[in-house]
Amino acid sequence: MNAHILTIGDELLIGQIINTNQAFIARKLNAIGVDIAGMSTAGDTQEGVLGALRAARDSADVTIVTGGLGPTHDDVTRTALCTFYHTDLVPHEGVRAHIAALMKKRNFPWTAAAEDQSLVPRSAHVFPNPLGTAPGLRFEEGEKFVFVLPGVPYEMEAMIDESVIPFLGPRSGPNVIRHRTLLTTGIAESVLSAQIGNLDQILKSGATLAFLPSPAGVRLRITVHGNSASEADGIVRDVESALRARVSRYIYGTDEEDLETVLGRMLAERNLTIAVAESCTGGLIAHRLTNVSGSSAYVERGVITYSDASKSALLSVPAELIRAHGAVSREVACAMADGIRRTAGTDIGLSTTGIAGPSGGTPDKPVGTVWVGIADRGGTLALKFSFGEGRARVKERASQAAMELVRRRILNAG
Amino acid sequence: MNAHILTIGDELLIGQIINTNQAFIARKLNAIGVDIAGMSTAGDTQEGVLGALRAARDSADVTIVTGGLGPTHDDVTRTALCTFYHTDLVPHEGVRAHIAALMKKRNFPWTAAAEDQSLVPRSAHVFPNPLGTAPGLRFEEGEKFVFVLPGVPYEMEAMIDESVIPFLGPRSGPNVIRHRTLLTTGIAESVLSAQIGNLDQILKSGATLAFLPSPAGVRLRITVHGNSASEADGIVRDVESALRARVSRYIYGTDEEDLETVLGRMLAERNLTIAVAESCTGGLIAHRLTNVSGSSAYVERGVITYSDASKSALLSVPAELIRAHGAVSREVACAMADGIRRTAGTDIGLSTTGIAGPSGGTPDKPVGTVWVGIADRGGTLALKFSFGEGRARVKERASQAAMELVRRRILNAG
Repeated sequence: MNAHILTIGDELLIGQIINTNQAFIARKLNAIGVDIAGMSTAGDTQEGVLGALRAARDSADVTIVTGGLGPTHDDVTRTALCTFYHTDLVPHEGVRAHIAALMKKRNFPWTAAAEDQSLVPRSAHVFPNPLGTAPGLRFEEGEKFVFVLPGVPYEMEAMIDESVIPFLGPRSGPNVIRHRTLLTTGIAESVLSAQIGNLDQILKSGATLAFLPSPAGVRLRITVHGNSASEADGIVRDVESALRARVSRYIYGTDEEDLETVLGRMLAERNLTIAVAESCTGGLIAHRLTNVSGSSAYVERGVITYSDASKSALLSVPAELIRAHGAVSREVACAMADGIRRTAGTDIGLSTTGIAGPSGGTPDKPVGTVWVGIADRGGTLALKFSFGEGRARVKERASQAAMELVRRRILNAG
Repeated sequence: MNAHILTIGDELLIGQIINTNQAFIARKLNAIGVDIAGMSTAGDTQEGVLGALRAARDSADVTIVTGGLGPTHDDVTRTALCTFYHTDLVPHEGVRAHIAALMKKRNFPWTAAAEDQSLVPRSAHVFPNPLGTAPGLRFEEGEKFVFVLPGVPYEMEAMIDESVIPFLGPRSGPNVIRHRTLLTTGIAESVLSAQIGNLDQILKSGATLAFLPSPAGVRLRITVHGNSASEADGIVRDVESALRARVSRYIYGTDEEDLETVLGRMLAERNLTIAVAESCTGGLIAHRLTNVSGSSAYVERGVITYSDASKSALLSVPAELIRAHGAVSREVACAMADGIRRTAGTDIGLSTTGIAGPSGGTPDKPVGTVWVGIADRGGTLALKFSFGEGRARVKERASQAAMELVRRRILNAG
């Protein structure tokens, strides 16, 4: 069984809001073994909705439509459905009673718009909207199903969970879809691909592998279609093992984890504390580390030493060292890492100093040049990176590289 | 002129990532008077891409395609384009040189994947990707244009701005669409709506107003369709004036500006310097302030004092004060703001202390309780906020409230 997701609304076509409904519905349908054949978005016009509805119904077994069911004049989905299914609107007592109860609870008066909203297409099966006024509609034509839901995410989400998934689950057949994502960082997509080598040796039948690059690193997504959960899970396990055998060094986590969560768990498990001295990352590393609940157990402090004076005052970096090598140098990165570790009294001191841009670059040290320093009981070292252009991206990539350096250092310390 | 936006990628169809490219492209095209006729998403298969491409090209004057241009096996857009346009892939010296330069700069080896990426469809016009390897492609068939860009948002965005909009702008005809967004913070949507009052008195013909709430504040978006730029701009100006007359106090910026950019400009213009002492925001304020290019001129330093010891060591907050009032208190917020201003020697000291959650709340000080402190030559004060649940959201709202406090304080100082 496959499905098409059709979202309706001018606010989507003008880019006023980002479409989050599509991804939510896709994940829910995937989880019961329904593939998504495609997605589309139409505006609030009869002809736009009709055309999109026709294309959707022709291309998939199931169509999920969201949006355009509200009480205002620009919501045209319901009348377009009547045209599409050659039917008309009729009063529905259950819907009317539900709307009346909701209006009363919210102290809203009964209006012509509410009266209008209690009409439903004659051939539709109605299913409830526990959190709002517009009911859900289901149309059946042989083996084809079209579900119509409101566009408000929190109403739509409840209705997908409570009505759509329970209806489709038993009908979706034995097909099982599993996704597993391995998160890598510190390696380019093309290099990762080369190290993994020939995919035919790794991918068993029913499995595919996708490379998904981002400033935080390349994600490797394994997708498996199987006839049973145990079969699909077994294939996922085998592919994951084969990939780990080749590039394990670059994999820091799986699925929805982020590096700060993985690193935080490692620090907490080992009772290690950390303090951060940031220059070019400007607080982003501390921000990410402290996004993790419970991080106060291992993050002792951070300093953002943007000025040379603050590097000397807070980290005892000698002014002569900065003069001799420049603030963006191995020597200063090491002195910052040492300084924050000593003053904070933590197990690990981490530092960054670089040129986030767009200004400040030189031929010797172009924008994107970043030194990351780390100090622990094993000693102090600094690594140089070239992150290219784009201030936000340089900060993001530098924060990722710095946390990855800590992760590898902890792993190597055994 | 109208357009269709086609996004390609299995990661979209399985709901792994939320589609932000569509909204970005829609806004940019709207700004030059191009309406969006529809949007669609296809997976990484030849037939999926071909079908979507055909439907898009048939339904609109311009098609913008993003995604599926990477160097790995799962990226099929380019070969689908060759089939669609009955052409073949040929080496492109300019593209090859660009990729080679990029690989060299990043210290990546030249690979077969890079070689493959230097091939482009013979009939395509190539336009540059300043931030990545995959070039942009433009196909022309009479009055129909198809643009193909990589799916990585930051590469795609630069290419839309630098190549697509400059190409389409002069060809898009007399229809004018104007959007103008007034950014407010520190006021709830319902209160803002009540203060604005009856919209019929504010909105002239052709104008609409949307309320867009977010953790950073409520955005007010004015949209105007006009027959000429001067007509549309005039209506926008009138609506904006009417809104400002009612709620000017809450408006910190317009359109794509963010509070850190607005505040940074105010600090730079007045030659004021700032230092930040963060507890619950964990570096987010420093991160946001330093996201602004040129911020090293006014951000002297930041400290993240997560532990009580660091509050005393770095900010001279007396341990007795923390014992007497608790770390989350007016007294400690004021002492932190005073402490960072004194040690950094800046004009302004800003501080946060609160409970980001999910743990750490008490009946007296529930999760979301945040004190924001500010010290300047006018004195020192702290304000208490209740930001509700959700660690990331509490941090975001607290950082916004803290920067807004600085903005208002500077304005009031005249």
